[in-house]
Amino acid sequence: MVGSLRRMLIGQALPSARMTHERLGKIQALAVLSSDALSSVAYATEEILLVLVLAAGGGALGLSWPIAIAIGVLLLVVAISYYQTVHAYPTGGGAYTVSKENLGTLPSLVAGAALLTDYILTVAVSISAGVAAITSAFPALEPVRVEIALAAIAIITLVNLRGLRESGRVFAMPTYFFVGTMYLLIGLGLARWLAGGLISVPPPTPVEGAVVHNLTLFLILRAFASGCTAMTGVEAISNGVTVFKHPEADNAGKTLLWMAGILISMFLGITFLVHQVGITPSETETVVSQLGRHVFGVGPLYYALQVATALILLLAANTSYSDFPRLAMWMARDRFLPRQLANLGDRLVYGNGIVVLGVIAGLLVIVFGAQTHALIPLYAVGVFISFTLNQAGMVRHWLKLRTPGWRHSAVINGAGAVATAIVLVVVAATKFTHGAWFILLLIPTLVVIFKAIHHHYQQVADQLALTGRWPVMMHHHTTIVPIADLHRGVIKAVDYGQALGGQLHVVTVEIDPEATAHLLARWAEVFPNLPLEVLPSPYRSVTEPLLEYIDQFVQQEGDYVTVLVPEFVPAKWWHHLLHNESAWALKLALLYNRRDWRGRFRIITNVPFYLSR
Amino acid sequence: MVGSLRRMLIGQALPSARMTHERLGKIQALAVLSSDALSSVAYATEEILLVLVLAAGGGALGLSWPIAIAIGVLLLVVAISYYQTVHAYPTGGGAYTVSKENLGTLPSLVAGAALLTDYILTVAVSISAGVAAITSAFPALEPVRVEIALAAIAIITLVNLRGLRESGRVFAMPTYFFVGTMYLLIGLGLARWLAGGLISVPPPTPVEGAVVHNLTLFLILRAFASGCTAMTGVEAISNGVTVFKHPEADNAGKTLLWMAGILISMFLGITFLVHQVGITPSETETVVSQLGRHVFGVGPLYYALQVATALILLLAANTSYSDFPRLAMWMARDRFLPRQLANLGDRLVYGNGIVVLGVIAGLLVIVFGAQTHALIPLYAVGVFISFTLNQAGMVRHWLKLRTPGWRHSAVINGAGAVATAIVLVVVAATKFTHGAWFILLLIPTLVVIFKAIHHHYQQVADQLALTGRWPVMMHHHTTIVPIADLHRGVIKAVDYGQALGGQLHVVTVEIDPEATAHLLARWAEVFPNLPLEVLPSPYRSVTEPLLEYIDQFVQQEGDYVTVLVPEFVPAKWWHHLLHNESAWALKLALLYNRRDWRGRFRIITNVPFYLSR
Repeated sequence: MVGSLRRMLIGQALPSARMTHERLGKIQALAVLSSDALSSVAYATEEILLVLVLAAGGGALGLSWPIAIAIGVLLLVVAISYYQTVHAYPTGGGAYTVSKENLGTLPSLVAGAALLTDYILTVAVSISAGVAAITSAFPALEPVRVEIALAAIAIITLVNLRGLRESGRVFAMPTYFFVGTMYLLIGLGLARWLAGGLISVPPPTPVEGAVVHNLTLFLILRAFASGCTAMTGVEAISNGVTVFKHPEADNAGKTLLWMAGILISMFLGITFLVHQVGITPSETETVVSQLGRHVFGVGPLYYALQVATALILLLAANTSYSDFPRLAMWMARDRFLPRQLANLGDRLVYGNGIVVLGVIAGLLVIVFGAQTHALIPLYAVGVFISFTLNQAGMVRHWLKLRTPGWRHSAVINGAGAVATAIVLVVVAATKFTHGAWFILLLIPTLVVIFKAIHHHYQQVADQLALTGRWPVMMHHHTTIVPIADLHRGVIKAVDYGQALGGQLHVVTVEIDPEATAHLLARWAEVFPNLPLEVLPSPYRSVTEPLLEYIDQFVQQEGDYVTVLVPEFVPAKWWHHLLHNESAWALKLALLYNRRDWRGRFRIITNVPFYLSR
Repeated sequence: MVGSLRRMLIGQALPSARMTHERLGKIQALAVLSSDALSSVAYATEEILLVLVLAAGGGALGLSWPIAIAIGVLLLVVAISYYQTVHAYPTGGGAYTVSKENLGTLPSLVAGAALLTDYILTVAVSISAGVAAITSAFPALEPVRVEIALAAIAIITLVNLRGLRESGRVFAMPTYFFVGTMYLLIGLGLARWLAGGLISVPPPTPVEGAVVHNLTLFLILRAFASGCTAMTGVEAISNGVTVFKHPEADNAGKTLLWMAGILISMFLGITFLVHQVGITPSETETVVSQLGRHVFGVGPLYYALQVATALILLLAANTSYSDFPRLAMWMARDRFLPRQLANLGDRLVYGNGIVVLGVIAGLLVIVFGAQTHALIPLYAVGVFISFTLNQAGMVRHWLKLRTPGWRHSAVINGAGAVATAIVLVVVAATKFTHGAWFILLLIPTLVVIFKAIHHHYQQVADQLALTGRWPVMMHHHTTIVPIADLHRGVIKAVDYGQALGGQLHVVTVEIDPEATAHLLARWAEVFPNLPLEVLPSPYRSVTEPLLEYIDQFVQQEGDYVTVLVPEFVPAKWWHHLLHNESAWALKLALLYNRRDWRGRFRIITNVPFYLSR
């Protein structure tokens, strides 16, 4: 039943031969790989304003424009820095790979922890922001925002478990739809602004009792840090160089620069217009939605803008569903995560990673009530850790290789590393009390867990290695059949024991002397030539006397002792409650009772007896 | 760790030889076996008043006296009827045994269901009433009544799991302490009444908005039904005839009559005095406590009364801890309950039954907030079902045996059966909407469950019986070792497979062609003379190709196919998350995949490999 439900939801298993990689042209690749980065335009401006609005007086909101320009410059630096990564690592240069190769294990684990956290947050943040775009247009849906977000996560998870064949054409639509409506919004807004027709909305009346801060440098830095969420997803193209058509690195590099250009222009355009109109953030409507209403009026264009925003945010969440399982798979292959994460499932996807991602993202959405603003402080720290490690790794890369032009490249990556490191400190400091502390605790914790897992796998490998003392080959073989009664199942087990060869001992534990006498009499009738040994049990335990009996055969290394445990396989689940409790107790005791380490040579065999009714 | 906690709480295992039965004289036996019956004096009068107080006008409370007399007469009839059971079933004549022997299976199952329900309710009711005695004296404890009750149940359960050696002397104390203080209360009260010094308390002012009923016949019958809880526990002596000194039946019969006399006199005495003083039931103080304060004043005697009441109620709850597991054991031996309930545990008690009783009684206390009054409507139905079946069974007994004087005996038991049957109808009808409906649904449900369990065990016995076609003895023997890698654990498994004799096949499932080629090369080095077979798996499932491969060997009935599953036994619990997932999947599939029923001859063997780190 579980199996057929699974088939219905996820589909039939796919053969390995169907594993193909679609190669994408630049236009399609831009759409597929940039949705995460471009979609952040939907909330980045708002995050800046949400900090500035805390300052006394409405004038602070004007700072959004210089802050956005600073972020734009930073974005350009990072994009150029990644442009070099693309050429240096044409097989995909994520922060984990680059730091592993250039900086060593510990930095790579930090990068891995930061990236995994980040992918999870990308899902939670993008879905929450997408739901906000929907509830801005349809305020009636506001009370069920968490439910909508969870449903969206569930659908994306299922679709990815089925195995979403990356199709450039299908993915290109929402991305270009979003870019198109955004440029229309910005173009129309700028035209009206130039024509003087863009009327400012009245400044909001200050909320009674709201805590008003002074406009300190700290607050400005915090606004900058919040706006840096615009940079999330910039690294996606450098991870996906292999999906480009030949020449991969060239195409990827050009696409990366195009993406940066589109992102910067959209972000600056939106921030500029929002500033000109004088929009302030609201609890119930996003800033972009307010701008859209103001420029387009409530009509088809406005709704198109909201739909496009929601779609690209869903698409952005979806990118994590390929990034997270892929990184988890690499880390599992390196033995830093449980190896189950490296299993390619029925549908040619790393299903375990997809499920882990969906479940944790869903929990985050529940805990934070699908509020984008509440999740943002957790978000940017991981992004900038991976940026910094990636760029620093690249500097090390150039220093090692010294290929022609290495000095120039090292300077560019060095500038990127320094810039992102500074921003990392700013982000961590200004958002520390708002949730960044959690990520700063979580990442070292994850690193410790990765190391513990790796240590364990290493120890297992050492214990299993075919080096040193060769396992002793044994050919003494004793079989023990513990029985409580004489029935068809027991006869099966005894017959099997005879088929195994070696010495055969059938034993019973005496709990009730009367029952034992009766059993002995019946036994003598059925197996006249095979003695039934009786073990006394003054304390009425079945397991203890058997363990002692079995251990007396495991005296020297040259012995195998097989214990045949007759076991019923009931026809209905509730029948389990009525059977097998002694069989299970004995099996557990045999597996986990390690007295004197002689247990190594006790073998446990289930002889199943199938009940049909 | 679990083991040592268990040892600390429950104690070391006891040898079977320590199983002895203490024989009791009449004085001690009365104390041990009557606490349940006598303790009901603590709440029976109050239950009558709680119904009568609903009637308009205070005059209705006066009816408590004639109702109590009717109950006293009924009690006498039942006691005499049981006096005969004691002589007819000197080995213990519970309602289950008597109905099984005389009325057939179905009535005995009804009696069993009624008794089991009843024992559970005895614990819940007695503990709740005991807590009420304590909170009457110390009202500050009222808010934690449920917690006190649960702690009491936990302690009694633990004490019984340790194995309470029934000690007549220890048990006699609280019972005679209770009887003594009760008679002191009644005697002093009557003396003051005769001397005219017993001043009535003023009648209570009617509660605003309370629903006031007319004094109907229905209400009177309901009051009578509530008072009938005084009769619970009367059957205890008939169950425990074997604990008496020789001549058992004579001694038991006399003790039974003594008990009835004490119970009736205490019950009537209390009810008479409560009526004379004009006490009305209160939410916060029991009726007996009010009477005690009135007669004794608040002083040492009053507190002694409350302590005695609480003690005997604890003792009454404790009697269920020997009755319930014993009945459950008998029903399990008759295969109407899971056989685990018939296991004599470490400490020579039927531990599973004790735990089941404690858990269900604890749940009842939580659900009903440890309110005696709320539990009472559930209580009496089961008692009277078992009374009726017991007496009816005795009538049938006399009709069958026709021993001298059988007519006389049959008439007495017949009178008991008719009287208790009528009361049963009254109780069920008047308390139906107050909770009796639940018991009237529960008992048939339990009977259906008993029958299903019995049917299942019967079917298993049929399938296991050594009749009909004898199991085929087989001596073709194939061993299959599925491996994924080559390490010490695999070498152990292969060596063991060779020790078993028969044909040996080592197979691997190809998921990654590169890894398989590598494995084959290493394999050829280690086992040059043993081929490693490779199974293709286009869908990357490990289990499916193995199942198909294994099944090709199970072509005819004469084959045993042993599958050796190498399995790690990790050193730490969390290591389980990192290992064995394929081994478990394969084992489950082998056990539960019943394709074509050929699975009967597939044997699953765990070859454990112990990891030390």
